[in-house]
Amino acid sequence: MSTTDDTTERSTTRTTIVSSRDVEAHLDMGDLVPAVEAAFAAYENGTAQMPPKSYVDLPQYDGDFRSMPAYLETDDWQAAGIKWVNVHPDNPSQFDLPTVMGTLVYTDPRSGFPLAVMDATTLTMKRTGAAAAVATDHLAVPDASTLGIVGAGVQSYSQLEAIAEVRPIDTVVVSDPDDDRLARFVEAFENDFDVRTGTVAEAASCDVLSTVTPVESPIVSVDDLGDHTHVNAMGADAEGKQELQTEVVREATLVIDDFEQTTHSGEINVPWRTERLDRRDIDAELGEVVDHDPFGGDVRAGVTVFDSTGLAIQDLAAARVVYHSLDDAGSDLELVATGR
Amino acid sequence: MSTTDDTTERSTTRTTIVSSRDVEAHLDMGDLVPAVEAAFAAYENGTAQMPPKSYVDLPQYDGDFRSMPAYLETDDWQAAGIKWVNVHPDNPSQFDLPTVMGTLVYTDPRSGFPLAVMDATTLTMKRTGAAAAVATDHLAVPDASTLGIVGAGVQSYSQLEAIAEVRPIDTVVVSDPDDDRLARFVEAFENDFDVRTGTVAEAASCDVLSTVTPVESPIVSVDDLGDHTHVNAMGADAEGKQELQTEVVREATLVIDDFEQTTHSGEINVPWRTERLDRRDIDAELGEVVDHDPFGGDVRAGVTVFDSTGLAIQDLAAARVVYHSLDDAGSDLELVATGR
Repeated sequence: MSTTDDTTERSTTRTTIVSSRDVEAHLDMGDLVPAVEAAFAAYENGTAQMPPKSYVDLPQYDGDFRSMPAYLETDDWQAAGIKWVNVHPDNPSQFDLPTVMGTLVYTDPRSGFPLAVMDATTLTMKRTGAAAAVATDHLAVPDASTLGIVGAGVQSYSQLEAIAEVRPIDTVVVSDPDDDRLARFVEAFENDFDVRTGTVAEAASCDVLSTVTPVESPIVSVDDLGDHTHVNAMGADAEGKQELQTEVVREATLVIDDFEQTTHSGEINVPWRTERLDRRDIDAELGEVVDHDPFGGDVRAGVTVFDSTGLAIQDLAAARVVYHSLDDAGSDLELVATGR
Repeated sequence: MSTTDDTTERSTTRTTIVSSRDVEAHLDMGDLVPAVEAAFAAYENGTAQMPPKSYVDLPQYDGDFRSMPAYLETDDWQAAGIKWVNVHPDNPSQFDLPTVMGTLVYTDPRSGFPLAVMDATTLTMKRTGAAAAVATDHLAVPDASTLGIVGAGVQSYSQLEAIAEVRPIDTVVVSDPDDDRLARFVEAFENDFDVRTGTVAEAASCDVLSTVTPVESPIVSVDDLGDHTHVNAMGADAEGKQELQTEVVREATLVIDDFEQTTHSGEINVPWRTERLDRRDIDAELGEVVDHDPFGGDVRAGVTVFDSTGLAIQDLAAARVVYHSLDDAGSDLELVATGR
């Protein structure tokens, strides 16, 4: 086996505890995008294992937990672990806490030893951006220089950071009804890009569009999009959510991250349930596109849509990047008494 | 709601990292046994959620991982979390590591915040002992003073520690083919109990018997047992394993921890699959026994068997005990950057 031997690189008897600040400092998009691409290829090739997400629903707190275990073997490395992540929409107003927080246990597949425990809050945002970048790299025109972003919340930042890794983005059009969010986004990026605020239609006419909103009524129409816009539909993460009018996904070349997850809670869940969309409308999973490009490149001349729900293999790929870039940062702890 | 408010007791922005040594020091059996009993009652009463275990199988390493998420609300407290645990039988010989290691993320159900991350290696052993104690407390004769233990490996210690919490055990008969294991067990307990080594039959004739072996051919027969022996069948944890002859579980009053898990991989899995045992042979789940005692106490006059596979709610109950006994031990870390 040619995979990297994690436990000979670092001690097997100490567990590294990685805070969100460490993740922020050690999860470089330039490393993360190819790691996520390799994870999708492994998923397509059958060298990944990803049991279905388990949910614990707590309606009394308007929240839930999701368990996301996975194992992954790419050409160069392997990893095993689990993310435990919550969604509590009242957190910001009620507790001054993020809506979504995650914790990831990163384990050695050969022994099960917990190599690291890391905050997966920042990690989740970045691996989501990285999946959009992988899809953009395979589905957008090669010289894409304009990026529209609809929704200027916490997820929008990693969309721009990741997509700029794979395309020569110079102009960004950002749309959001909240002026404060817009101002924060513009301030964060105005030194590196020509960042403009605009309407949804103005954002949607760019070479690449990422939608990162929680809307339940679609806000992007076929007429809004450019001739060759590649759309990353990132926002829908639950039953009933939909950002793009059904005609958009019906007419576009449609690529999904995972069949079960997207039909359950992704961008296509509403038209799928109402039978306005069926199997024939789904052109490929992202793993196929990464592995063997079923479209032969021609697909870039028209509108393409990537429906992303977020997979445990993305989290694991991100955790692997963090673990290997940490060196001696983070705080090592003898979590398990091994008797040595 | 009358449940204890975890996040007002301790800071909500720091995560406590709890090593196995901290767990050892802060998981008192006197607290753990009633906590596990309350967990089984909640499970019976429908105030627990426990999605099925997910498995990641790694035959190339002769190992696997199990994901064990749960939520639990008892009369006095609530808890949510997940244990990620491996079974790699080659670990001791190949890596000088335990076969089973676990990591548990303990989260606030109301916000999802990770209150603690703890090693679950010692915790798993202790909560397994605690389940045996709960079953023993409800199914063994009240004045049980002799305990037989078959198998003197790592799980045997917490059997004695836990069962001695619920019965006036003075004499222990331990049986194991390995003299070194026997000697270590005797040395550990000879100051507190009259500990003798003996045959399987000698151990099995005690008031209470715990079997904690990995055998696949049954080693305990009906004739070995005393008239009123209560048996905790703890060892079987995978398809094909069986410690008690099928006649033992057929003739005894049989209590299981969970139907899906015991028929899949518990003591009864082999006779269940071969249809030498069916629904009528299962007299109750432990949650029923704890909640409303369907037998009315008479059951103690005969042989009783508890088939334990280990439930995520036991882990969560144990984690809750650790978290609340820690006070200012453990190392608090700002794992999630909350912006405060």
